[in-house]
Amino acid sequence: MYSAIRWRVRRVRGSMPGTGLRIRTLHVRDIRFPTSLGAHGSDAMHTDPDYSCAYVIIYTDREIEGHGLTFTCGRGTEIVVQAVKSLSYLVVGQDAGDIFKDFGSFWRKLTSESQLRWVGPEKGVIHLATAAIVNALWDLWATAEHKPLWKLLVDMNPETLVSTIDFRYISDVITKEEAIQILKSKQEGKGEREEEMRTVGYPAYTTQVGWLGYSSERVRDLCREYLSQGFTCFKVKVGQNLEDDKRRCKIVREIIGWDNKLMVDANQNWDVQQAIDWMKELAEFKPLWIEEPTSPDDVLGHAAIAKALKPLGIGVATGEMCCNRVMFKQFLQAGGMQYCQIDSCRIGGVNEILSVYLMAYKLGVPVCPHAGGVGLCEMVQHLQIFDYICLSTTKENRVIEYVDQQHEHFENPTNVKHAHYIAPTAPGYSTKMKAKSAESYEYPLGHEWEKMFNEGTFQRPHVPLS
Amino acid sequence: MYSAIRWRVRRVRGSMPGTGLRIRTLHVRDIRFPTSLGAHGSDAMHTDPDYSCAYVIIYTDREIEGHGLTFTCGRGTEIVVQAVKSLSYLVVGQDAGDIFKDFGSFWRKLTSESQLRWVGPEKGVIHLATAAIVNALWDLWATAEHKPLWKLLVDMNPETLVSTIDFRYISDVITKEEAIQILKSKQEGKGEREEEMRTVGYPAYTTQVGWLGYSSERVRDLCREYLSQGFTCFKVKVGQNLEDDKRRCKIVREIIGWDNKLMVDANQNWDVQQAIDWMKELAEFKPLWIEEPTSPDDVLGHAAIAKALKPLGIGVATGEMCCNRVMFKQFLQAGGMQYCQIDSCRIGGVNEILSVYLMAYKLGVPVCPHAGGVGLCEMVQHLQIFDYICLSTTKENRVIEYVDQQHEHFENPTNVKHAHYIAPTAPGYSTKMKAKSAESYEYPLGHEWEKMFNEGTFQRPHVPLS
Repeated sequence: MYSAIRWRVRRVRGSMPGTGLRIRTLHVRDIRFPTSLGAHGSDAMHTDPDYSCAYVIIYTDREIEGHGLTFTCGRGTEIVVQAVKSLSYLVVGQDAGDIFKDFGSFWRKLTSESQLRWVGPEKGVIHLATAAIVNALWDLWATAEHKPLWKLLVDMNPETLVSTIDFRYISDVITKEEAIQILKSKQEGKGEREEEMRTVGYPAYTTQVGWLGYSSERVRDLCREYLSQGFTCFKVKVGQNLEDDKRRCKIVREIIGWDNKLMVDANQNWDVQQAIDWMKELAEFKPLWIEEPTSPDDVLGHAAIAKALKPLGIGVATGEMCCNRVMFKQFLQAGGMQYCQIDSCRIGGVNEILSVYLMAYKLGVPVCPHAGGVGLCEMVQHLQIFDYICLSTTKENRVIEYVDQQHEHFENPTNVKHAHYIAPTAPGYSTKMKAKSAESYEYPLGHEWEKMFNEGTFQRPHVPLS
Repeated sequence: MYSAIRWRVRRVRGSMPGTGLRIRTLHVRDIRFPTSLGAHGSDAMHTDPDYSCAYVIIYTDREIEGHGLTFTCGRGTEIVVQAVKSLSYLVVGQDAGDIFKDFGSFWRKLTSESQLRWVGPEKGVIHLATAAIVNALWDLWATAEHKPLWKLLVDMNPETLVSTIDFRYISDVITKEEAIQILKSKQEGKGEREEEMRTVGYPAYTTQVGWLGYSSERVRDLCREYLSQGFTCFKVKVGQNLEDDKRRCKIVREIIGWDNKLMVDANQNWDVQQAIDWMKELAEFKPLWIEEPTSPDDVLGHAAIAKALKPLGIGVATGEMCCNRVMFKQFLQAGGMQYCQIDSCRIGGVNEILSVYLMAYKLGVPVCPHAGGVGLCEMVQHLQIFDYICLSTTKENRVIEYVDQQHEHFENPTNVKHAHYIAPTAPGYSTKMKAKSAESYEYPLGHEWEKMFNEGTFQRPHVPLS
């Protein structure tokens, strides 16, 4: 059926897929999973997250839809939902082909709306909402092309790919022309790398062995389990209690040994000097990186921490809350991140993420995507696979986060084998949720929530929701 | 009546005013003024602002209310309104005295709510909403004390004042103990400075002579008018068309001469190198500062621009979109701002602004507050007057922005005489709107809006509003 639609579309309006595909409407839903009931996902700052998302569906005048989402932690999803509604007038009624053929300009239109930009600009709620919409547009595009998103990106010529990016505010680090040249220089061996991604896949690391609050026995068992699955990189949450951090790090090293990699993550819990002092205490466990040691906005603070920890062989990783390409630019310029952790929803979708990959490549910083929240693993695999095939062409010092949660709610969940993400084959951005999941967990009226309210497991929301 | 209430409160519960004052409820309203109908307020990025606000009223179990707001530009106000609703559960039901006696901790509770912080943290929509709520709490506190806000601050002992501040993430530049010492060292002459503020007032500059799109004749007339009112500093918008910028700067200099000051403002329109090149072209007009030359997030970019323009005698000013104290910290550390333009609503209210004043003082950067939007002039005068009396103790290189718009909608509008803000005398933070204004301009159901919709001056909103 898809082929027939594509054929008809192309015949009528020319070569740009999606042309003649009118965006009829955009729906947004507040979907929440009650993950706070376990200790899953808890860290030093987010003690009781209910993994959630603002979930966008773009309907067209054909049988093609675009699905996109932005990850949230429960309360606050209703604000992002409102922001999606406020932005949606820029999308509804548009011809998808017109958007895709000059996606960079359309992206700027979304992020620079003359009144809405005041409540950002390009950060926080409005940018999370932008991400959900933009992700849905990319899913629509890839679906219309009948390709998984990574393949859509891989098959684009460099000029088309770069036309999706807004270079405003980053031209002091990379220009459009430079980006095209870089991509052109990386064509050789694409076929082999693509084949490798389809068969062997891209290496993953696990965050599930050392959440705060896990008992020694649980940490031990989980390390053994993930080792047996083939994982070689393990991340542990730290930052609330030094002795407890040492306890868990010690156990992890006992089980995984010293050839495997250990990373630690403080989730923004420290001030600059405190981060340095604390990490000196944990240096004996030889962590590869300390993730989010302090405020995600503190470029210079991260740079100071990185400088102090370099002699100990510890790098600084951050990015999941880095709010836009301008902040990434500075982290990369200032030596504030040795590992660049792009997130698929925090910044303005694929377009802006591509600009970060290009800057990171140019400044020699490996990208190790953040994942684990609702749909994040599903999305970042496409981006990192694109990076490997078309840009960095190496997996050295690179690995994608993996958490085994909420995958069951997606139509095309990740396929992780021997601790590797196998390249997705289904068309789109892997962002389509199962209709039943979305219905059951829609907040607050989905029947799973209704059940939990009735049982008293959760209180009904105390704020008026839009 | 106020005195009686205060006396009763104090007698019952001790010395903290507001103790026994229960916060009964919090209302938030979407108030918009149709300023896009004129060219007022237009700049390179915000071409058609409707000056607006999310307006918060805190009701207590006595006849004392707190009024606060955050400035917005029209569309998007509905998102901030939703965010205020989402945060309000942290405020409603609290004892105001409990909040005020450990305001720093309460502030952190608001900004670090374990699920809501994901959609910030401390930036954009959620932080604008925080500002509106926190501003209302300060208005409540000052009202309960029967003092204008600046006087409440001036009369506080340094320990109490500093207890309102959250030093998280800024301890590498200033600590609590250091802040107390600084404030203690500035007590001498407070009485004289207070008297000066009540009589002479604090110097203001005008932004109203050179909005984009103003004709030569209009610029000329406005310069003459503001000169005759006593203004000595004049700001002109630039950044869309170099020849037009030159035209308007030339006219302004012709009228105001070379002893008065000219500032220019690009509202984020340039990339880094473009800013440098453009400003070299405008250097002949000897502007004191270039405001917002590029992305408000680009600390290192601003520092590069500042370095390049220093030999030309041009400083860099920014701050109205600087999203929190961590960003201010870096701008101050990196030499990215020679003039620190705090805004009363962009960051998390008085508490966080005080931390910026303290850092700016320590790093030797003058504060020149941003104002002009709805209620901004009303609020920033309190802050800058506090700074003069208790912290910087000088007006050198310092001036408050003034725009003559929307003051008529406030119960206690600014009192600007001979281009000076005269210290307010009414209790509170000057944030209370006239009931009739709020009713008439409430969006979209206020009767002024109803009238404009019916007349076809504006279209009814195209998005579902919460």
